[in-house]
Amino acid sequence: MTVTVAIDCMGGDHGPEVTVRAALEFVRKHDDVRAILVGIEEKIHPFLGNVDGLSLVVRHASEVVTMDESPALAIRNKKDSSMRVALDLVKSGEADACVSAGNTGALMAISRFVLKMLPGIDRPAICAILPTVSGHVHVLDLGANVDCSPEHLLQFGIMGASLVGAIEHKDRPTVGILNIGEEDIKGNDVVKRAADLLKDSGLNFVGNVEGDGLFKGDAEVVVCDGFVGNVALKASEGLVQMLASFLRQEFGRNLLTRFAALVALPVVRHFKHRVDPRRYNGACLLGLRGIVLKSHGSADVLSFDNALDRAADMVRSGVLERIALRVAQQAGQQANQESI
Amino acid sequence: MTVTVAIDCMGGDHGPEVTVRAALEFVRKHDDVRAILVGIEEKIHPFLGNVDGLSLVVRHASEVVTMDESPALAIRNKKDSSMRVALDLVKSGEADACVSAGNTGALMAISRFVLKMLPGIDRPAICAILPTVSGHVHVLDLGANVDCSPEHLLQFGIMGASLVGAIEHKDRPTVGILNIGEEDIKGNDVVKRAADLLKDSGLNFVGNVEGDGLFKGDAEVVVCDGFVGNVALKASEGLVQMLASFLRQEFGRNLLTRFAALVALPVVRHFKHRVDPRRYNGACLLGLRGIVLKSHGSADVLSFDNALDRAADMVRSGVLERIALRVAQQAGQQANQESI
Repeated sequence: MTVTVAIDCMGGDHGPEVTVRAALEFVRKHDDVRAILVGIEEKIHPFLGNVDGLSLVVRHASEVVTMDESPALAIRNKKDSSMRVALDLVKSGEADACVSAGNTGALMAISRFVLKMLPGIDRPAICAILPTVSGHVHVLDLGANVDCSPEHLLQFGIMGASLVGAIEHKDRPTVGILNIGEEDIKGNDVVKRAADLLKDSGLNFVGNVEGDGLFKGDAEVVVCDGFVGNVALKASEGLVQMLASFLRQEFGRNLLTRFAALVALPVVRHFKHRVDPRRYNGACLLGLRGIVLKSHGSADVLSFDNALDRAADMVRSGVLERIALRVAQQAGQQANQESI
Repeated sequence: MTVTVAIDCMGGDHGPEVTVRAALEFVRKHDDVRAILVGIEEKIHPFLGNVDGLSLVVRHASEVVTMDESPALAIRNKKDSSMRVALDLVKSGEADACVSAGNTGALMAISRFVLKMLPGIDRPAICAILPTVSGHVHVLDLGANVDCSPEHLLQFGIMGASLVGAIEHKDRPTVGILNIGEEDIKGNDVVKRAADLLKDSGLNFVGNVEGDGLFKGDAEVVVCDGFVGNVALKASEGLVQMLASFLRQEFGRNLLTRFAALVALPVVRHFKHRVDPRRYNGACLLGLRGIVLKSHGSADVLSFDNALDRAADMVRSGVLERIALRVAQQAGQQANQESI
């Protein structure tokens, strides 16, 4: 089986300079992948070089969705944007997945418009991976839905568990719900009702996970509404940046501290590698009839390449089918319960 | 003027061992303070030693509110708890402030029951200080209110700005609202309406602050509902703990890395001091007719002592009067607008 990934080469802060280079890296690394580079041909070619024998093609798209463009306008006016054409390729079956570092809102809206939702899922959710003390955690939603019903949060749990189940070959990954205390009585009404639904869902539900529990690895999948998830994710990013800048300041203070920095360099490098956000790049938009990955806008080649790898992994492991199956089971279970 | 602080000596994970020692430190350090140590006398005395000439007294209280006790039961059944008696001392005017490391929910509920709310404020809010790249930020609410109306968020803004204005002698501290994007159209309905209220409030409102903006110092006061605030705060704590444990692991890997740790020790110490959560201990419960500080339950002596210092600062700078005045102005302003 060959995995074909459609790449929106125009998205992101750096455009083709990053996306095309990452695509080359991606097809060189894997025997079973093929890349369709979508975007303005003359902007893509300078970064291509000699592509003899490489499993990639360029598909011209004349327009670009800008980073601050309204999603509604992008759908209506830019039918030949690199983002839209890449998603059309997934829709038509020419590609198995789409990866973009472009405007998140537009990617969300166009994906939904072009690919439609999986049956039984009301809203797409953004799911990303965060490092934990003992490994990593999948968190969703991270910003697609600012208001969620308990049913939406249940659907997020099902999708997240299906994703981790498929990719990490786990039978029943643990699922938690982000809350402000460990006890059942804590939290707002939506969260309490969602917890009740999750308890009865057949998922391996472990209950409430507090903010610090995210990084303690309290659950393999954590669900939350997009507002809370987005704030927690960005606060974490901001905190890491602050700590990094403090460390740089402290190590740069004088000759002695600079010497210390030199001695500590290998340790600091190891440490940085462990928490390098580039290794966690590639949030998936779950709930669509197709695989769509959103890369960080500021991604570099290594980072964007990780998003491409993640997309290929999702295709190989049959995530979509697994989600669809699990949602259908859930619907059957509910119908069963209602008929009893 | 002497500032009298009533200390709930029985609260927190370590009880009198920490609270009494911190109280001794506190009265030794300041000429203008007096401490009332509230709790079970025979548990307090072993940690007191010679108190000749020190400005402190012990007030016996026979009961203790436990960490997992229901706030409603604590109000009803424990009228002689150290927490309740300390708050009664504020109510009667014998003390100017109360500091407790005990059960947050109970402290919240008993404070509200004993002290009542300031006129014009509907709900108390928990306000804490977080470090930023350029200084620090006051954030509220951090968990007292899981659901907030736009009016509540406006009140938080007024209280936060009054607090910073009084303590840091700032005329018009900047106020932001925690949101998932910088643009006005972002966020849920409550946040958008709250932003409109804040814009018209006369506060120095700087608009939306994203999660990472918290630590970038985008505003001096940031308001949010207690659910989001609590998750962001605890996620940050969890992340710092994870990074610290990773650093320890990396520096402990082998002989070479242990040598590096030794060389880097002074730098790491400096760094740790800058982000030491103990320096930021002491969240205030704003909106009450009295000054109440909540210390972290796991606080050590240094940490609890910081909370005592913060309480004394709040009394000295007349925070309560400033909040009351600002709320009254706001009410006048609104009445004015409505009559136009």
